[in-house]
Parts: sequence; C-alpha cells; structure tokens
Amino acid sequence: MRIPEGDDQWRHICESCGQVHFFNPKLVVGCIVESGGRVLLCKRAIEPCKGKWTLPAGYLELGESTAEGAARETQEEAAADVTIVAPFAHYDIPIIGQTYLLFRATFANGCEKHEPGSESLETRMVSAAEVPWDEIAFSSISLALKAFFQDLEGGTWHHHHAVIDKKRGSAPNDPGSFLLRDHLKLPLARL
Amino acid sequence: MRIPEGDDQWRHICESCGQVHFFNPKLVVGCIVESGGRVLLCKRAIEPCKGKWTLPAGYLELGESTAEGAARETQEEAAADVTIVAPFAHYDIPIIGQTYLLFRATFANGCEKHEPGSESLETRMVSAAEVPWDEIAFSSISLALKAFFQDLEGGTWHHHHAVIDKKRGSAPNDPGSFLLRDHLKLPLARL
Repeated sequence: MRIPEGDDQWRHICESCGQVHFFNPKLVVGCIVESGGRVLLCKRAIEPCKGKWTLPAGYLELGESTAEGAARETQEEAAADVTIVAPFAHYDIPIIGQTYLLFRATFANGCEKHEPGSESLETRMVSAAEVPWDEIAFSSISLALKAFFQDLEGGTWHHHHAVIDKKRGSAPNDPGSFLLRDHLKLPLARL
Repeated sequence: MRIPEGDDQWRHICESCGQVHFFNPKLVVGCIVESGGRVLLCKRAIEPCKGKWTLPAGYLELGESTAEGAARETQEEAAADVTIVAPFAHYDIPIIGQTYLLFRATFANGCEKHEPGSESLETRMVSAAEVPWDEIAFSSISLALKAFFQDLEGGTWHHHHAVIDKKRGSAPNDPGSFLLRDHLKLPLARL
C-alpha cells in the first residue's frame, strides 16, 4: 500500500511490476418486472440473506450495458425474458461501496414466464398488498418496491435517487440503520 | 485465469492464495454546474484529450456517494464549491467499461468562483452558443451538454439515459462512432 505519484489516496501497488490496483465501488443492476399490477420477486437460495425475498439483481459485468446486465440477472435468477422500459432508481450505499441502478421492465412479448434459477428458491408475482415487507433481503430493494408501487398507484413514473446511509456491521435489511440524506434537495424518506 | 466454481466467466485468480480478483465496470461521476444560463467547463491539462474541454468528472472512490464524488471532482478540477441539485444523466459506454452518472448542480451559496485545478488548464462558464462543440473531449460530455441546454431552454428537466455504442479503438470524442441503442424505448438520438 502506498500513494502513487500525483494521487492523494493509498492504493494497492504490486511490488514486482508496479501496477496500481484500484478498488472502486461496484454497480448492482436489476429489474422491477411488472405485469397487471404485480412485480416479480425471487426468494434467495444463497447467502447473504438466504430465504429472504429480493428483486432480480446482481453485479454488472464488463462489456455489457446496465440495462443488458439487469436483463441478464433477471434471466439468471428468475428464468424470465424481459424488455427494459426505463431507468427507475439510483441508490448509493457508500459504506459497502455499491451503487444500485434498477430498471422498470415488462415480460418480453407479454409472456409471463418465470421460474427459480440456481440462485433462487422460488419466484413469485406480488401486488403491493402481497409484498412480504418483513422478509425483504435488502433495504435498497424495500425502498425501490415502495417507490414503485407509489408511482404505479399515482399513475406517474419518477426517477428515484437516494443515498442509503447504513452503520458498519448493520444487517442488510435493518430498517433501523436506514436513512436518506437530504443533501440532494429531494424529499426525505424513511423506510 | 480460470472459471471459479459456480461462476460462468473467466476471472483473474491468485495462484498463491486463491483469491478471485473481479474486474468490474467503473462509475464516472460529474457535475453540470449552471449559473445564469451558463455551465462550467474545464480545459484538460492531462491525457487523454489534453487541451479539449469537458465537464468536471472522474472515477467514484470507495466510501463516497455518487453525488459526493461528483462534488469532489468539481472541487479538484475547477476549485468550485457546488450544491448538488438532482441526477441528470446516466450514460453507459460498455466497450470501455464505464458508466457515467452526471448531476445538475449550482454554485454553493450562489458564489460563482472557479479556477483551474491541477488537472485543468482553464475553467470557463459557457452558454449553449459558446460551447466549443468541436473541442469537447468525450462523446458522453457532448451528449450531456446537448441534453442539458435542451432541457434548460424547454423549461423542463428530464432524467436522461443512453448507451454509447462505440467501436473499439475509436477516438474518445469521435461523433462518427456514436449512436444510442433504442432498446430502452427512449427516443433515438445522434450527436
């Protein structure tokens, strides 16, 4: 670890070849797939939060767009072919170095087919009333689902942004550790 | 290089300790700082595209939100204190593994102060008519500036998303290699 010339941060540098290895925040991309007022949830088959419910989402890979990555994750986790409609939410979680970019989507060709992929135990379409709010894996997903059903009910789509300001070591879905900073002049919200 | 168990992609894996080193796309964050119909541009003092104009922007660091990173880059490159207003644009450039998240911003406390940081030769406030369109460093920045001045003139702010589909090896600002995919059902645009 040392500070490269012209930089102001400590970086991992190979002692042998001198290459600087930057560790940057990662993008998590996913879909809110809607059909007839219900959205697609996946029950997680893997840790963290095995057995809890989430939206299909995962790390963006090199070479794909965020929309392509979101559709790929939906195929992998819920075996669903989807068409991306538009960006819906951009949530930062600085303490774990993640930025979520979630898209609204529909089933491709209107064909409402889904089944668990290898990382899911179960897939299910749920209305706002049917969301298992106490069993959602991650605070970012709870936030996105609340925003989605609010927009769906209100009849107007917004682009949503927030910073999720957790305490180190808190549970992924711990609502007590959750708040939105208001420095963006967007409405302050709490789960 | 090998495919870790349970994965489907080739990864860099340390032969000594077995650790998998993931290389993921990087987030570039930046600001469109507006005051009286003009926006803040920086003339680049470093490669790539030394001598060309750009918005203050750079790689997000671990531990900061995208808005904080955008404000930090604006401080570093243009010595300007800004207040973030809202997300403005989300552009993917898959071929170089970058996602741009650009925010609208204003000068903090209305104090229109700016001067070149170590990575800039010059900073300048420009109107739509004054933008040096042929001297903009990156296609993503040209796209953002066009969208910004269109919204400013139209009196309505939108959230903008596009995928910039370049050919490998093309110049960073090459307009001939630029197009937006229309798979998001958003209006197709060209520079």
